[in-house]
Amino acid sequence: MVFPAVPEPDGLPEPLPEPAVDELRLETVLGALSDPLRLFIVRKLLLERERFDHPCGWFGIDRPKSSLTHHFKALRAAGVIRQRQYGLERRSHVRADDLEARFPGLLALVAAWEPPRG
Amino acid sequence: MVFPAVPEPDGLPEPLPEPAVDELRLETVLGALSDPLRLFIVRKLLLERERFDHPCGWFGIDRPKSSLTHHFKALRAAGVIRQRQYGLERRSHVRADDLEARFPGLLALVAAWEPPRG
Repeated sequence: MVFPAVPEPDGLPEPLPEPAVDELRLETVLGALSDPLRLFIVRKLLLERERFDHPCGWFGIDRPKSSLTHHFKALRAAGVIRQRQYGLERRSHVRADDLEARFPGLLALVAAWEPPRG
Repeated sequence: MVFPAVPEPDGLPEPLPEPAVDELRLETVLGALSDPLRLFIVRKLLLERERFDHPCGWFGIDRPKSSLTHHFKALRAAGVIRQRQYGLERRSHVRADDLEARFPGLLALVAAWEPPRG
């Protein structure tokens, strides 16, 4: 499955700390994705990407900022997303190439996920 | 990916309660698999299946029985394994057809999983 890619702009801030691609662990990645809000975040980043990185406000999620910060950090720590600090704001994209290399097909399952009804 | 199948014997006990195939939820299945011991169990059932159902003693896991019971129950509740009660013993197999139908490729990732080193 090929997801929309956006060229990497020049002069990006360094990524925040994250596991290298060969350090990714299936159990950790699955744990990070075992939550509807996180699946929503990753799916939206995969399917509706408009820029290289998106800040958490882009997702339109009605949750406290501290809760969102926690979820984005968990996704980054597991290696699912890459985050960069732009001034006061963190922005994210999915590590699609890394995840596809290590766990082929996993992101297609996330893309096909449907939020729970009600 | 095709895993070894074993014909269903006659006169099996009814399966213990489990979600129907159309009730399986990706977030729940990923959560149930986000643990090395559970990945070990599912991978061994997928790759080394010898009989229709296997009791937890077959896995050779050095953990208290109560802990194993908990992990097998979590896998069943998520829809990953089917369990049947044979007298005093519960035996399990992976719901490979159901999982492949709903989440194609997921079991191949489990089969390719390698336990953490050390």
